[in-house]
Amino acid sequence: MYICGVMTNQKIKPNLHTVLTPQLLDLYEIKDSIVVIIDVFRATSTMATALYNGARKIIPVDSPELCIEMGKQTGGVTAGERDGKIIPGLSYGNSPSEYPRSFIENKVLVITTTNGTKLLHMALKQGAKDIITGSFPNFSAVADYLVQQGAPVILGCSGWKNRFNIEDTLFAGAIIEQIKDHFTIHCDSSFMANQLYHQHKDDLTQYIKTTTHWHRLAAYGLEADMLYCISKDTAPSLPIYKDGALVNGL
Amino acid sequence: MYICGVMTNQKIKPNLHTVLTPQLLDLYEIKDSIVVIIDVFRATSTMATALYNGARKIIPVDSPELCIEMGKQTGGVTAGERDGKIIPGLSYGNSPSEYPRSFIENKVLVITTTNGTKLLHMALKQGAKDIITGSFPNFSAVADYLVQQGAPVILGCSGWKNRFNIEDTLFAGAIIEQIKDHFTIHCDSSFMANQLYHQHKDDLTQYIKTTTHWHRLAAYGLEADMLYCISKDTAPSLPIYKDGALVNGL
Repeated sequence: MYICGVMTNQKIKPNLHTVLTPQLLDLYEIKDSIVVIIDVFRATSTMATALYNGARKIIPVDSPELCIEMGKQTGGVTAGERDGKIIPGLSYGNSPSEYPRSFIENKVLVITTTNGTKLLHMALKQGAKDIITGSFPNFSAVADYLVQQGAPVILGCSGWKNRFNIEDTLFAGAIIEQIKDHFTIHCDSSFMANQLYHQHKDDLTQYIKTTTHWHRLAAYGLEADMLYCISKDTAPSLPIYKDGALVNGL
Repeated sequence: MYICGVMTNQKIKPNLHTVLTPQLLDLYEIKDSIVVIIDVFRATSTMATALYNGARKIIPVDSPELCIEMGKQTGGVTAGERDGKIIPGLSYGNSPSEYPRSFIENKVLVITTTNGTKLLHMALKQGAKDIITGSFPNFSAVADYLVQQGAPVILGCSGWKNRFNIEDTLFAGAIIEQIKDHFTIHCDSSFMANQLYHQHKDDLTQYIKTTTHWHRLAAYGLEADMLYCISKDTAPSLPIYKDGALVNGL
């Protein structure tokens, strides 16, 4: 039949949803989805940068104690900050600028973050098909991967202590802007995220300065870090979670 | 001291936060706050309308069974819909158009809704100072009350089955636009809500048609209802929760 012919010629587009904070993750169908962990300031930006610069792998952990322990086990570089300072017992901070190729190439990075790592472990527990991390520095690598895979997508914003934040939502919106023709989107969170990005894509630097997280980190003198974290494609890499660590899938 | 003088002349502005879905309510300090329950399509729009048209009180309940029971106890009008149809055993639906003065004046309305009633009971349990309901039809009454009270405010969006929705967030943004000079706001949810409203205040009718809830309700032929629900100040009333029911505080 003609109608059937038309139907079979149409590709069914997989669903895409945006989860605004980890506390909302359980409302979504995670199983069989690719979950993109987004923590723009600064965990996933730093991860993309370290892998781009040749880190062998990154082990994300959720406590300083485990970071120290895993650092010993793997001989890796330990990293983590609280309130803008390196956590006692660890060696490095959360800034992407700390991980140039000359330092991080071929090393293992063990990093403790609060929001992003928590979301990653939640997605793992809920049976995600694949987990990757996304940030502006590896924007196109993420967008290309999602289109190539053709599987359902969850854009997971790490937020701030389970609350909504603007910078992670902006990144989700940027990804949606890029790949929306390839997905079925019936989700107000995604519409809002896309619209927020669309409205501000040409004044992202000014806009980001209005967010609560900018003010929090600017108080520690981290403006240059944050400007790097909203720059697209400066660290093309695809951090993908395999056997307990993020490796570069590119 | 001069500095002290300046300080004491400055009024400390109370905090205002926006809670994007009921599932995020526990992240906020509810005690001593005024919580505004927002369920634009259509529970809180209908409540404002019924009280404006002289309903004696509204008893919000979270199940059809309780609605029937409370209807018997109070001799009230029972109301509730699922999937665009009146729930079997109840007498009326969720449309504001069903409650003109000629029908509802001096009557008790017992109404069951999913999202809004749930949030109201959560706010009650978490010790809210006051609970009122907000919608575009009673927009100015809500804004004026919040400014007059000078207490911390939680704008509580009912969302859709705990997920974020655009229409409730738009109303929160409209309230923020109106009263922001009277409050301290350090909250990305509020910034985003305000911006969403600010961007669309002149094309609200077109914009609302892009939301998931519009499509859901339009399938039941409820377009006129929804257009009413985004019209400002058509039913000036202040539904305030006292002794188990909403009464008109104006």
